[in-house]
Amino acid sequence: MKLRYAVIGTGGVGGYYGGRLAQAEHDIHFLFRSDYEQVTEHGLQVDSVKGGFHLPKVNAYKSTAEMPKVDVVLVCLKTTANAELPELLRPLLGEKTVVVLLQNGLGIEQQLSNQLPGVSIAGATAFICSSKVGPAHINHAQYGEITLAPLCGDCKDVLRTVCEDFTAANVPAHYSDSLNDIRWRKLVWNIPYNGLSVVLNTSTDQLTRQPAARALLVDLMNEVIDGAAACGVKIDRKYVDQMLAFTEAMTPYLPSMRLDYDNGRPMEITTMYANPVRAAREAGFYMRKVEMLMQQLVFLEETLDWKLPY
Amino acid sequence: MKLRYAVIGTGGVGGYYGGRLAQAEHDIHFLFRSDYEQVTEHGLQVDSVKGGFHLPKVNAYKSTAEMPKVDVVLVCLKTTANAELPELLRPLLGEKTVVVLLQNGLGIEQQLSNQLPGVSIAGATAFICSSKVGPAHINHAQYGEITLAPLCGDCKDVLRTVCEDFTAANVPAHYSDSLNDIRWRKLVWNIPYNGLSVVLNTSTDQLTRQPAARALLVDLMNEVIDGAAACGVKIDRKYVDQMLAFTEAMTPYLPSMRLDYDNGRPMEITTMYANPVRAAREAGFYMRKVEMLMQQLVFLEETLDWKLPY
Repeated sequence: MKLRYAVIGTGGVGGYYGGRLAQAEHDIHFLFRSDYEQVTEHGLQVDSVKGGFHLPKVNAYKSTAEMPKVDVVLVCLKTTANAELPELLRPLLGEKTVVVLLQNGLGIEQQLSNQLPGVSIAGATAFICSSKVGPAHINHAQYGEITLAPLCGDCKDVLRTVCEDFTAANVPAHYSDSLNDIRWRKLVWNIPYNGLSVVLNTSTDQLTRQPAARALLVDLMNEVIDGAAACGVKIDRKYVDQMLAFTEAMTPYLPSMRLDYDNGRPMEITTMYANPVRAAREAGFYMRKVEMLMQQLVFLEETLDWKLPY
Repeated sequence: MKLRYAVIGTGGVGGYYGGRLAQAEHDIHFLFRSDYEQVTEHGLQVDSVKGGFHLPKVNAYKSTAEMPKVDVVLVCLKTTANAELPELLRPLLGEKTVVVLLQNGLGIEQQLSNQLPGVSIAGATAFICSSKVGPAHINHAQYGEITLAPLCGDCKDVLRTVCEDFTAANVPAHYSDSLNDIRWRKLVWNIPYNGLSVVLNTSTDQLTRQPAARALLVDLMNEVIDGAAACGVKIDRKYVDQMLAFTEAMTPYLPSMRLDYDNGRPMEITTMYANPVRAAREAGFYMRKVEMLMQQLVFLEETLDWKLPY
């Protein structure tokens, strides 16, 4: 089965993963916005710890209306843009198209499924340090493994083929039967590190190193594991130590939410915090410290433009 | 009974309250440090919403060794300096001297009592917006009520006289039989506003006004009330609304911990956070969000000088 791909959102994540598939000569089509002129003139540049590459010519579009129907859509936008998704996706959808949300947070696949009934929808989590450093210019600093899992529709076989395509293209990829599982596992890292890097104006390494912050990371991770358990996802407590060790092995890093905040972009608070807090609470567990982090982030986002009285 | 007073720590609090007693011509002796030259040359200036005044000559000292023994010591230092207290106090202590800790936090009177067995010790809480704005120059912006309560020793009568002296000197003052009660009541305001003003880099009015922060204030206040209850102090839930209304009526204000942090001074984390968290926990209640605020403050304090890797 030879799949045709589309990438919606060609930033640090979409540019890297889509770029790898393009490098491996897959039939892949990219939606660009501000970087469209740059990519049509100079192509896509990917610097990578696993070997950088330049793609002089990629199938680039300014609008999904101009793009062909595809077998697989990799949605790599921030979830703060998800309200636009149904509109954006419609031109790409054939009979059996699988939409894969390569995004952060919880509940996003179900929300899209409610908006696009009958469409096959899956989610994917990426452990990767990658960011856009200039127009059509991606820097992949570390890691890169992804995991895919279906929400609905007959998409198992397609997802397995996507995994094979990625793996052959130098991206370790896994298939999981439980979307809920991979989403909550990613939240164990995302919730503490993203929010605290914003609220405490710091980086992954300092949080992991300073004892009080490390204790708080552990508390938050354990709350997420308890929340996951309430929602039927079993995550071993050892996962906490694994995440800390994983982060210690990383080069000092500013999580995506910190970059969003610093650049005045909206933060993914709804999908990364509000949805998990609500899901856990409805399932009977109150993630108190996670909720507090959410409250602090909402305050920071909403007061960003407030004039100080002193 | 005519009392002789000493004030240890002549900043926003000590300068205002001591200044009022001096203005009323009480026998009162002030410890100064960096402002000693200024006060001996130019006296003490107190600007106040209740009427400012200038004291051209005050009994000023550079060291407690030079000061007379007194009936009442008003300790108005930050609790971060409390390790020095036994040493500082010794020259001032007569047979029946009462030491009043006009400071923030919990457990400070007991700690001093352990260090100075046999000495009469009391605590006092002040609801006041007052700060030092220059050498020997105090600005009292709002409020000013204080409440005194004994820890140990035969000091009831002295404390009642202190209340009378203050009230006659234009400072509303009350006597309470329960030190634990007045300490926990003050913490209901201090814990949320001090810590959040540092962590979220903001002021009392913005916290009270923005809905997510206000919800967090309410959560933190309720945790403190639950912690107090575990420690045997009953505070009505209505107190939360009273504290919010009280703060809304205040002019926008930077709590003392925020000023300490901004000026690179140590914050009163141990007495304002660690001691209450531990006391509540030992009594069976875990103040989770309060603990998280403490963890964040410790991180900020300890990493103040850390070089950022980016």
